[in-house]
Amino acid sequence: MAVIITIMAFELRPPHGAGLDAMRDQLPGVLVYVLSFTFVGIYWNNHHHLLRTADRISGAAMWANLFLLFWLSLIPVLTEWVRDEYLHALPAASYGTVALAAGLAYAILVRTLVQANGRESRLAKAIGSDVKGRLSLVLYAAAIGLAFVSPWISYGIYVAVALTWFVPDRRFTRQHDGSASG
Amino acid sequence: MAVIITIMAFELRPPHGAGLDAMRDQLPGVLVYVLSFTFVGIYWNNHHHLLRTADRISGAAMWANLFLLFWLSLIPVLTEWVRDEYLHALPAASYGTVALAAGLAYAILVRTLVQANGRESRLAKAIGSDVKGRLSLVLYAAAIGLAFVSPWISYGIYVAVALTWFVPDRRFTRQHDGSASG
Amino acid sequence: MAVIITIMAFELRPPHGAGLDAMRDQLPGVLVYVLSFTFVGIYWNNHHHLLRTADRISGAAMWANLFLLFWLSLIPVLTEWVRDEYLHALPAASYGTVALAAGLAYAILVRTLVQANGRESRLAKAIGSDVKGRLSLVLYAAAIGLAFVSPWISYGIYVAVALTWFVPDRRFTRQHDGSASG
Amino acid sequence: MAVIITIMAFELRPPHGAGLDAMRDQLPGVLVYVLSFTFVGIYWNNHHHLLRTADRISGAAMWANLFLLFWLSLIPVLTEWVRDEYLHALPAASYGTVALAAGLAYAILVRTLVQANGRESRLAKAIGSDVKGRLSLVLYAAAIGLAFVSPWISYGIYVAVALTWFVPDRRFTRQHDGSASG
Repeated sequence: MAVIITIMAFELRPPHGAGLDAMRDQLPGVLVYVLSFTFVGIYWNNHHHLLRTADRISGAAMWANLFLLFWLSLIPVLTEWVRDEYLHALPAASYGTVALAAGLAYAILVRTLVQANGRESRLAKAIGSDVKGRLSLVLYAAAIGLAFVSPWISYGIYVAVALTWFVPDRRFTRQHDGSASG
Repeated sequence: MAVIITIMAFELRPPHGAGLDAMRDQLPGVLVYVLSFTFVGIYWNNHHHLLRTADRISGAAMWANLFLLFWLSLIPVLTEWVRDEYLHALPAASYGTVALAAGLAYAILVRTLVQANGRESRLAKAIGSDVKGRLSLVLYAAAIGLAFVSPWISYGIYVAVALTWFVPDRRFTRQHDGSASG
Repeated sequence: MAVIITIMAFELRPPHGAGLDAMRDQLPGVLVYVLSFTFVGIYWNNHHHLLRTADRISGAAMWANLFLLFWLSLIPVLTEWVRDEYLHALPAASYGTVALAAGLAYAILVRTLVQANGRESRLAKAIGSDVKGRLSLVLYAAAIGLAFVSPWISYGIYVAVALTWFVPDRRFTRQHDGSASG
Repeated sequence: MAVIITIMAFELRPPHGAGLDAMRDQLPGVLVYVLSFTFVGIYWNNHHHLLRTADRISGAAMWANLFLLFWLSLIPVLTEWVRDEYLHALPAASYGTVALAAGLAYAILVRTLVQANGRESRLAKAIGSDVKGRLSLVLYAAAIGLAFVSPWISYGIYVAVALTWFVPDRRFTRQHDGSASG
């Protein structure tokens, strides 16, 4: 995940000049960066919690994990595309498509992990029914279609979904120990 | 490995424009990216399993590991070259050469690890005779030559080899514990 | 953190030519790089000590951590901007703004960790009153304003703050064990 | 260290065209890359062994470690400079200067670690008198001066020093356990 944030941070460009105008020109880029940083950050946190709660990781889960990373690795290039063409439908819809694919990949990862750990495991209990996850997928699907009405509706949905995830996931908080490192 | 995926993801370019045509222009780049992501991902998974099963790592194994990383670190630049010149024999053959070299480096790494852990170790038993590994090397060697007939034959072989590896390696799955982190 | 140093190192450009003049042209870039490397390095060290001393990490601390990483991830682009426009007030002030925001984010992280671990924890005792941290924030705030008098005053303050942090933080040194890896 | 290899790998450029001529144009770049990869790889291995053998890491050692990373982080930009201007004295001499500084930083790191662990520690015994380390520093210093006679002498020395380090450092091999991960 750190890798993906690297790429996005790298694509931030310094203003061309030293005035306020030059700074303002970079504003869309910074806003999309904030959105994508939050998006990847949410996955980072949840993914971290998820794997810590898993007692067993199967071969299938390793592949599901790679599949999730594949979709997340496309976020930087879409961030760049939305930054350059944020008034158009196709980049906004593509951003939602990758977000949806990443969400599905995450759901697959969760399923393979539940399968490997059993329905009575700590993990399966911590996950529960995952209403928020399913709702996010529906909203992303809606955002893809609505991008062709106006890309701004899609951006609004992406921000809204990100905000719902900011509420930290209380389901995992109890199993922590002190070894998250930067 | 994450490092190599970073570089490749970074080399993905957003479409120049917001239309479907602009998106289509990036298609070869995305396809080569998928191939290389899969290629490196397979090494990532197998390498992860391999080192977890090893009880002892010798100095020679450390060097063999670096040697493998060296070849894998050339994948991004070859990905870029194939993307730009995918109709020509030399890039397709060079891609196969690096894949072959990485495969040989992996075989050397396995051998140094078996040597360090003994023929009766968990590791040596888990590896077995490694028919799939040897077959991959033969296919890569064939792909290098056949690139000069048509690069498409080589690409077909690279995809085919990648697909055979997608079948998860059951040999290691039993020794897992829950600490794979993104 | 390694990620941020990567990006900055990557933005270093080789001299255009092989003479001393060409080398001298890169001097501002190298000096800003040294400043930012030190800045991020200080956070790296302190952050490493902080998390090792924490026995529990709450969900809130995970978000505070991401918030800190967000601000630090803006350092490379500001390093680049200061390098290109070091004679102007706005880049110098912006650099200070991000440094201030990172400092506040670090303070929030410390607070969430103290909350999670309790006022009687090893961590809370190791932190103490953190005069140096507060002083840094005040100095950064001053540097933002003074950049509009002369950017050189700001640069002087940034260097001075970095130097005060070079004195290693004795508060944490006792709890170490031997597992810092490059 | 992985970070530094990333940057260097990233700076490799694909040939402009699909012919053998285009490939040959990239040869100097590939050769310098191999040298720098080996240089950083040697530090990676030795640094890994060094920190594993250390039982205690002091605050001073953390700073010495950052100081070493600083110099190593300059290797990519020098690699790029040497690639572009390999017929000139100044890039060749600068490369040696950074190599010398990295070597001195490593020596400082070793000293702080010996100080933290005591003269009777496993670490101090494993290090011994470090003739090879001292010899490397002398050779780098010579290479800096001789670059102004001919840069090829310097390149010869850099390759020779790298080769002497390829002989794996037997001093540390006994203390290993199986947890090196890619």
